Amino acid sequence: MEYRRLGKSGLQVSVLSFGSWVTFHKQLEDGSADELMGIAYDNGINFFDNAEGYAFGESEKMMGRVLQQKGWDRTSYILSSKVFFGSRPNNKPNQTGLSRKHIVEACHEALQRLQTDYLDLYFCHRPDQNVPMEEIVWTMNHLIQQGKILYWGTSEWSAQEITAAHMVANQYRLIGPTMEQPEYNMFNRTKLEKDYLNIFNNIGLGTTIWSPLAAGVLTGKYNNGIPEGSRLAMEGFEWLVNKQLNDDRIAKVRQLVPIAEELGCSMASLAIAWCAANPHVSTVILGATKASQLTQNLQALEVLPKLTPAVMQRIEEVLQNKPVVTPW
Amino acid sequence: MEYRRLGKSGLQVSVLSFGSWVTFHKQLEDGSADELMGIAYDNGINFFDNAEGYAFGESEKMMGRVLQQKGWDRTSYILSSKVFFGSRPNNKPNQTGLSRKHIVEACHEALQRLQTDYLDLYFCHRPDQNVPMEEIVWTMNHLIQQGKILYWGTSEWSAQEITAAHMVANQYRLIGPTMEQPEYNMFNRTKLEKDYLNIFNNIGLGTTIWSPLAAGVLTGKYNNGIPEGSRLAMEGFEWLVNKQLNDDRIAKVRQLVPIAEELGCSMASLAIAWCAANPHVSTVILGATKASQLTQNLQALEVLPKLTPAVMQRIEEVLQNKPVVTPW
Amino acid sequence: MEYRRLGKSGLQVSVLSFGSWVTFHKQLEDGSADELMGIAYDNGINFFDNAEGYAFGESEKMMGRVLQQKGWDRTSYILSSKVFFGSRPNNKPNQTGLSRKHIVEACHEALQRLQTDYLDLYFCHRPDQNVPMEEIVWTMNHLIQQGKILYWGTSEWSAQEITAAHMVANQYRLIGPTMEQPEYNMFNRTKLEKDYLNIFNNIGLGTTIWSPLAAGVLTGKYNNGIPEGSRLAMEGFEWLVNKQLNDDRIAKVRQLVPIAEELGCSMASLAIAWCAANPHVSTVILGATKASQLTQNLQALEVLPKLTPAVMQRIEEVLQNKPVVTPW
Amino acid sequence: MEYRRLGKSGLQVSVLSFGSWVTFHKQLEDGSADELMGIAYDNGINFFDNAEGYAFGESEKMMGRVLQQKGWDRTSYILSSKVFFGSRPNNKPNQTGLSRKHIVEACHEALQRLQTDYLDLYFCHRPDQNVPMEEIVWTMNHLIQQGKILYWGTSEWSAQEITAAHMVANQYRLIGPTMEQPEYNMFNRTKLEKDYLNIFNNIGLGTTIWSPLAAGVLTGKYNNGIPEGSRLAMEGFEWLVNKQLNDDRIAKVRQLVPIAEELGCSMASLAIAWCAANPHVSTVILGATKASQLTQNLQALEVLPKLTPAVMQRIEEVLQNKPVVTPW
Repeated sequence: MEYRRLGKSGLQVSVLSFGSWVTFHKQLEDGSADELMGIAYDNGINFFDNAEGYAFGESEKMMGRVLQQKGWDRTSYILSSKVFFGSRPNNKPNQTGLSRKHIVEACHEALQRLQTDYLDLYFCHRPDQNVPMEEIVWTMNHLIQQGKILYWGTSEWSAQEITAAHMVANQYRLIGPTMEQPEYNMFNRTKLEKDYLNIFNNIGLGTTIWSPLAAGVLTGKYNNGIPEGSRLAMEGFEWLVNKQLNDDRIAKVRQLVPIAEELGCSMASLAIAWCAANPHVSTVILGATKASQLTQNLQALEVLPKLTPAVMQRIEEVLQNKPVVTPW
Repeated sequence: MEYRRLGKSGLQVSVLSFGSWVTFHKQLEDGSADELMGIAYDNGINFFDNAEGYAFGESEKMMGRVLQQKGWDRTSYILSSKVFFGSRPNNKPNQTGLSRKHIVEACHEALQRLQTDYLDLYFCHRPDQNVPMEEIVWTMNHLIQQGKILYWGTSEWSAQEITAAHMVANQYRLIGPTMEQPEYNMFNRTKLEKDYLNIFNNIGLGTTIWSPLAAGVLTGKYNNGIPEGSRLAMEGFEWLVNKQLNDDRIAKVRQLVPIAEELGCSMASLAIAWCAANPHVSTVILGATKASQLTQNLQALEVLPKLTPAVMQRIEEVLQNKPVVTPW
Repeated sequence: MEYRRLGKSGLQVSVLSFGSWVTFHKQLEDGSADELMGIAYDNGINFFDNAEGYAFGESEKMMGRVLQQKGWDRTSYILSSKVFFGSRPNNKPNQTGLSRKHIVEACHEALQRLQTDYLDLYFCHRPDQNVPMEEIVWTMNHLIQQGKILYWGTSEWSAQEITAAHMVANQYRLIGPTMEQPEYNMFNRTKLEKDYLNIFNNIGLGTTIWSPLAAGVLTGKYNNGIPEGSRLAMEGFEWLVNKQLNDDRIAKVRQLVPIAEELGCSMASLAIAWCAANPHVSTVILGATKASQLTQNLQALEVLPKLTPAVMQRIEEVLQNKPVVTPW
Repeated sequence: MEYRRLGKSGLQVSVLSFGSWVTFHKQLEDGSADELMGIAYDNGINFFDNAEGYAFGESEKMMGRVLQQKGWDRTSYILSSKVFFGSRPNNKPNQTGLSRKHIVEACHEALQRLQTDYLDLYFCHRPDQNVPMEEIVWTMNHLIQQGKILYWGTSEWSAQEITAAHMVANQYRLIGPTMEQPEYNMFNRTKLEKDYLNIFNNIGLGTTIWSPLAAGVLTGKYNNGIPEGSRLAMEGFEWLVNKQLNDDRIAKVRQLVPIAEELGCSMASLAIAWCAANPHVSTVILGATKASQLTQNLQALEVLPKLTPAVMQRIEEVLQNKPVVTPW
């Protein structure tokens, strides 16, 4: 496994990591979660990603039970949670968002669900226009001071919002956000390849990217329609279908498959490795419902060194979506 | 229920809230308190206001017992206390005021009486000329850092005093007061509609206003003298009678009653809705001794949208006390 | 009892207070200590002064036992300790002085001996040239932040040293010393009446003065030699004799006795009241070994209003030692 | 025993101290460790040095057991640990280095192994280019604030790195490193006698030096080859042989032996005293596997006053390695 610094911070995160979004609780039972996390850990994955909002806290509870049973050395892995969406089916006011009240209460609840004394990473899962930046930055710093979290970050914040958080941190001499968790994949490149460039340089932001397979579209499994039992066939995920699946994308995946075949890897591995090839990506979060799936995706590690400039160029020619960065 | 941000803070407070001043312990038993708080909570009220000084701490103890028994999710409501007046019948030096000693000791005692680990809001119940502002602001910040309170504020402080608190906070890079709890009603408008205007703009102060009914005068129930069993008939409240009740006020209430009747609501609901119509009001604190009273007052929510500019204008013509704001 | 603000702080301290120096443990048993503290408390004294160095910690233990047994409301009194001299008969390096190690360890030990969760006042018992001011101020602030002490101060520091502490506090935006505990009496006036004047004005320093009777000399009891059983007759206090007792002083006391008689009070009461008459004195610490002694000294409260300008002038004519303050 | 301030800090450290590197666990059993530490303590040594990296944490466990059994007053000695190398035979990412995660986790583990509530000194055992200085300084300050460590320092950092740490501390108004633990002996002088000079003056850095005997070479015991049972004969220490042992050094030790004989002391005592003679050395850390060895080395205290300028000059003439300090 390759490990990278989480931005300029001192934390070393495996370039592939394991996320529980939608799969834990909803699609998985404890036994399978146990098997999947075991495979991940044994292959050197050291970052397990979670959030209060995943399956209303059930995802954290399941991960907490597995970790408890595994008994792995707490210092050997990185555990995260995220605050914003709440953990209740019907969230009341102050049970979501980034007010001090919710950040503090959500942190305490996440610690309990995950059965741990501290979170390594704690993310603001979305920006919150209804909370002053001062309140967010102060609260995160209090949690760090109290030893309840080690690093704090953001998810799906704009470059401007992340910069604002650092300006507040500078003004009050506090600790700013260390990392951002954006969506990133072959079809969704603007933020990471263009918007964040100044932040990477000036602030040294780390990224823990999600959706490397664009909800599975980049595995090629939707190349011939939506198979039964796949995530895009699940009830309640119609919005994902609309967002991720369209003819243009399918056409491109079909053109990428031959490249994967030439490299002797699956389309999924290629797509994952392609994300990891971006040096601004600290780690690529993988989800999985089956052991075989995870094992296969881990092969991205072997694909990574095969992504020569020539191969990358061929991929660009298929994608035709490289963001244009105008010099400042 | 409508929820508003508490000033510029991230906290969402129900526009109507529930206060225990004078009613708890003095006029109520646990059973009634239980019923009243149940009605409030079920109607979406999420802020329960209290203070060390209400019935010498007995009000907090009663509320603590009810909350314990109700077992509501701690994250679903906002709990406050206030420090200044002390909680003992015969307070000794340092058992009142805003010295670090009293603020810290009063906070610990309030947490015990309310049976909770933290207060959402903690108010300085009055200004204290005998304590330097630095001592107050530092102490409140230590309590926030220690996780014992989430937001701190003031009650019945002048605009100048609130500004001074924020200047100290800026100087030492600390957190200033988030909210003020002033008296506000149709007869008492200067502070909120004139004095605080600059603070609303510059600091983003929230307000949790009390006495929306001017001690009941605005219910119309004193229109024909002081009925037996009403608060103004209670022993020890003669000062309230003097302060709130006079012929001019009674005359105005009599003129307002027809407007209430036109809107199809009680005089009390109209007076409460009128307070809530001020956008600088974050929440209007209601007291009640009977379920019917509370239920009736909650109807203010339905009156609120009926307060059109025309209706408001008619009310102004009765009140004849709109503060004149001279541009700066 | 009269109460005064401790300097500009918000703490209210009784103008007469009770100290345990040399008397506790050495001269007193628990029973007597219990009686004396009871008299003090019942007469409105709210400050009980102590130090790690008094009788090697035994003074604190005795006071802790008495307080435990009395069961007085913890918020009704002010408890102090002081750090510097250590609490062991043979102090090793770092068991004395003002290093962070000793300040922190001494605080924890004092809390245990006094059986309390926090000290209201914590004094640096002497300056320490071997510790940088930054270390002292930071450490005291950490203890305040942790809730282990409420106010910190100094004892027998020079005006320059106290100023330096406040400069460091300003630089790092920390809390500086609130009070100083100097020796002050009719024979020892320079520090309080001259050296500290600028600090009183600029910083608002409070003072908790000790030795108002100059080791008993100002009671008049040494007017005819050293009686058996008096403190100056005790073994190990020869230095006190040398420091406090001389013919010039005895002569002056003899001249003051008639003034006391005119005012209808004891010489001791006069001397104590004279100290309290200085508005820069926050409290005069009294020691006592007998109930009668304490009761008599408490009469200083009644003497205080009798100290008219004319009386004060007559006293000055006897003392002939008023410090000359040259305008700056 | 002579005690010195640890740099400008208020901590008093015995000029000779006791370190457990390589000897504890690897070469010693609990019984011997007990005997050695007893001798050290009885002779006035008050600093016991340790690190997570010594024998994979076993050195700290052994010292913790001995201290537990000895029951010495915790305030009578100074205990240290160091973070960087990790405490596991196969350290995973984040189980070494100076990330916030490892510093915090290593501190908690050291406290458990040493069976204590706080470390007096906590060292960054090496610089870490992969962690921003801000992260290190903030984390150390959080540990001080939480009361888990009292002073923090560095080991084998360059003058530039130590200066950078203080610059960050100044910028954020935090506490910078108090002491550095460098190698220092007759053969290894540049850092202490040249590189750090500005830091000694400007920052007041203390030093706890190790390897005063150059891995035993300065005892003279390798003057005629490597004896069986000596450290340089141990498996795994071939690198030490290469680093410390060469003909030039042996030749010089042979010339120093007569000087030691003239002073009536062992070669080892002379070498140790020579280190302590440098006023920038706060303490010289001694290791030992046998009681006799330690007792002998403690004689350096008696040698120290014999190191007159004349004797020092004769030693310089043998060493011929005095660093040239060019005025700035």
